[in-house]
Amino acid sequence: MSSLFKELNFNEVGLIPAIAQDQKNGDVLMVAWMNRDALEETLATGQVCYYSRSRQKLWRKGETSGQMQKLVELRIDCDGDSLLLLVDQTGVACHTGRRSCFFRAMRNGELTEIAGPEINPETLYGTSDD
Amino acid sequence: MSSLFKELNFNEVGLIPAIAQDQKNGDVLMVAWMNRDALEETLATGQVCYYSRSRQKLWRKGETSGQMQKLVELRIDCDGDSLLLLVDQTGVACHTGRRSCFFRAMRNGELTEIAGPEINPETLYGTSDD
Repeated sequence: MSSLFKELNFNEVGLIPAIAQDQKNGDVLMVAWMNRDALEETLATGQVCYYSRSRQKLWRKGETSGQMQKLVELRIDCDGDSLLLLVDQTGVACHTGRRSCFFRAMRNGELTEIAGPEINPETLYGTSDD
Repeated sequence: MSSLFKELNFNEVGLIPAIAQDQKNGDVLMVAWMNRDALEETLATGQVCYYSRSRQKLWRKGETSGQMQKLVELRIDCDGDSLLLLVDQTGVACHTGRRSCFFRAMRNGELTEIAGPEINPETLYGTSDD
């Protein structure tokens, strides 16, 4: 563990971006942020925990929605300022009910929806979101 | 194009993280940053251009090394604060000569190198780096 943290460069507010990638098919599911506590908890529990910048607290992915991410492997990049999380995603990663947060693509010069919801967000959250 | 920029949320210094993913095999190659100019240039030319935070200028990926990235598709996430670039990578993405910048993984509690260089970095840059 010590070999990891000495290689990481958290930014000026103590955060590092984390990309969650579906280990089954390689889809990029989402990008969020971690602080040191979130990463330590993720490694300790095997369940992905981010840091919510809007709520300014740890964000245990799926705690409300049930759509958890099990960490399969953590990778870090060459300059230690980004994390790649290979995960087993339960259900969907996106609060809109889509499997991936990257469901809009530029096609023919226009932003186009390329994937629809698989789950009704109200089923996941009631009236709030994750 | 207008439909894109109104959906994007650049951060407080005008940047947005961009993940480059190999469109052939789904490998996450690198994470870097773009400002509006870099993204506009990328869309206009089809060659990926980032913004270098260390050099504080546009960084035309591969300009020095020849290891260019051709944009195949741009995707954005649900809250418009991250970009996913599906790319055709010429050669290697990492300045260390490795295909992906994410060549270190936590395995058995230790940071472990999981991929070696495919190209000698000195071949790419002489004595400097990208």
